[in-house]
Amino acid sequence: MSAAANFADRLWQAVDEKRSRACVGLDARLERIPSFLCEETDSAAECLLAFNRQIIEAVAEHVVAAKPQVAFYEMYGPAGVAAFAETCRCAKQHGLVVIADVKRGDIGSTAAAYARAYLGPADEQGRAAFDVDAVTINPYLGSDSVEPFLAEAQASGKGLFVLVKTSNKSSAEIQELQASGKPVYEHVAKLVSKWAQRLPGRRGYSGVGAVVGATFPEQAAALRKLLPGVPFLVPGYGAQGGSAQDVACCFDEDGYGAIVNSSRGIIFAYEGAQWEERQFAEAAAAAARRMKQEINAALGR
Amino acid sequence: MSAAANFADRLWQAVDEKRSRACVGLDARLERIPSFLCEETDSAAECLLAFNRQIIEAVAEHVVAAKPQVAFYEMYGPAGVAAFAETCRCAKQHGLVVIADVKRGDIGSTAAAYARAYLGPADEQGRAAFDVDAVTINPYLGSDSVEPFLAEAQASGKGLFVLVKTSNKSSAEIQELQASGKPVYEHVAKLVSKWAQRLPGRRGYSGVGAVVGATFPEQAAALRKLLPGVPFLVPGYGAQGGSAQDVACCFDEDGYGAIVNSSRGIIFAYEGAQWEERQFAEAAAAAARRMKQEINAALGR
Repeated sequence: MSAAANFADRLWQAVDEKRSRACVGLDARLERIPSFLCEETDSAAECLLAFNRQIIEAVAEHVVAAKPQVAFYEMYGPAGVAAFAETCRCAKQHGLVVIADVKRGDIGSTAAAYARAYLGPADEQGRAAFDVDAVTINPYLGSDSVEPFLAEAQASGKGLFVLVKTSNKSSAEIQELQASGKPVYEHVAKLVSKWAQRLPGRRGYSGVGAVVGATFPEQAAALRKLLPGVPFLVPGYGAQGGSAQDVACCFDEDGYGAIVNSSRGIIFAYEGAQWEERQFAEAAAAAARRMKQEINAALGR
Repeated sequence: MSAAANFADRLWQAVDEKRSRACVGLDARLERIPSFLCEETDSAAECLLAFNRQIIEAVAEHVVAAKPQVAFYEMYGPAGVAAFAETCRCAKQHGLVVIADVKRGDIGSTAAAYARAYLGPADEQGRAAFDVDAVTINPYLGSDSVEPFLAEAQASGKGLFVLVKTSNKSSAEIQELQASGKPVYEHVAKLVSKWAQRLPGRRGYSGVGAVVGATFPEQAAALRKLLPGVPFLVPGYGAQGGSAQDVACCFDEDGYGAIVNSSRGIIFAYEGAQWEERQFAEAAAAAARRMKQEINAALGR
């Protein structure tokens, strides 16, 4: 595969191969990881990694992507960040598209450093700082904060997902302020639409995507119309309340255009009554399979 | 000092002790670090750290705070993040107030992990993930993304600076959209004002601050009036174009209310014609001293 293959093209190829539109959120919290795993490891970071490795192996056939949320690793300082990097590497080795959920956003010269960290080329030893396929970014600082990510993504065939409408309750406070007759998030969508022109793929979609929460289906449907050719990363499925019906509107007529993330609903599925602790990976695989099927069913596929 | 001493009170105490309102931005870029230093070290991360240690030691008497920008460390992966953590520790040991410029922002459960990482208590071994006094955060997700930082800061006497009006050119694209007759950043300011009530100090200022760029002095002056009792972190001095006159409007009548950051203008001052490479720390100290004096002069202090 050419290094500059478009990110969206790669994503839909994975969707075709796996018949799945699901993404697993690798947001491990120590206190919810089976205790026997932590007893077998020497540190919080090692325990997270041991958990993630087994989850990744178990769910890889049912999900197209993995989205580790870096906050849960930064919590444990540099060792935690090393576990994050290793988690990304492991997910990639298992054939998953890796989306680093970092929500970075800063002025141009700083954004360039972040872009390099997550989307940049490997060094002479063949190691990238973090070996991922895409990142999430925060648009509050405007175009010059996004430009360095576009430049790196263009060079490397990687992708980015810009926060447009997030899944949390207070997202309305700023994102839904009305400016010139439309909410702020639609203004952001308009910028995303412009940025997306920079990374065109072969199948009508850009390497520039949008984060659109599953918890606000009406707004998601409106955004789908506003942003043809922009892949959606849809958080909020499962634990946060979004259903397969809720996310259906994020897809196009052909069943592309979005991937849907579930974190806790997959990785902590073993907490359900029918499972035992030692079955955590099996439970995660079952939850991922069910999610994949639910979404496909809602799309009639 | 009680663990719950208010962040702003500690900040103004440092201002009193040092007669300085300057903050040094520790945004080291490998390609601008004197080459002899890198030849003496084994990795990029070690070189950054060696540079920072000498800069911190040299400027500590002239600045009240240090603001490492984490992007420049994340660039080098986990080892870079370890250098970031060590840089924070070193700045603290030299008596500086440490502001981690991380601009994090995420949904509540994730924000709690970030808040814990940067403002949370130390573990049983007495080590915090990152031992800093305050962080910068991005408000795009609204109150529930800020709440965990407020809770941690309240418990620990630490602080936060919320992005209100940033120093970069395209900050206008979203921050200056007009909603109900005022720009988005003033709506954010109103939220900051509300959040600030949670962390009152003894000297009329809150532990909740605002990031207000020095490059837009008129807007900064308006924000100073809108946000009494909210400390400003003012980036954009020096290399980005802000002058001592530009930042004067960010202070109150008594010369408190703001600290001003310069990164490249201090740490790479040795690039000026009158210095040699080996004098980089001396050059930084001279630049920090001059900045301190310029700001004090502009305030008539």
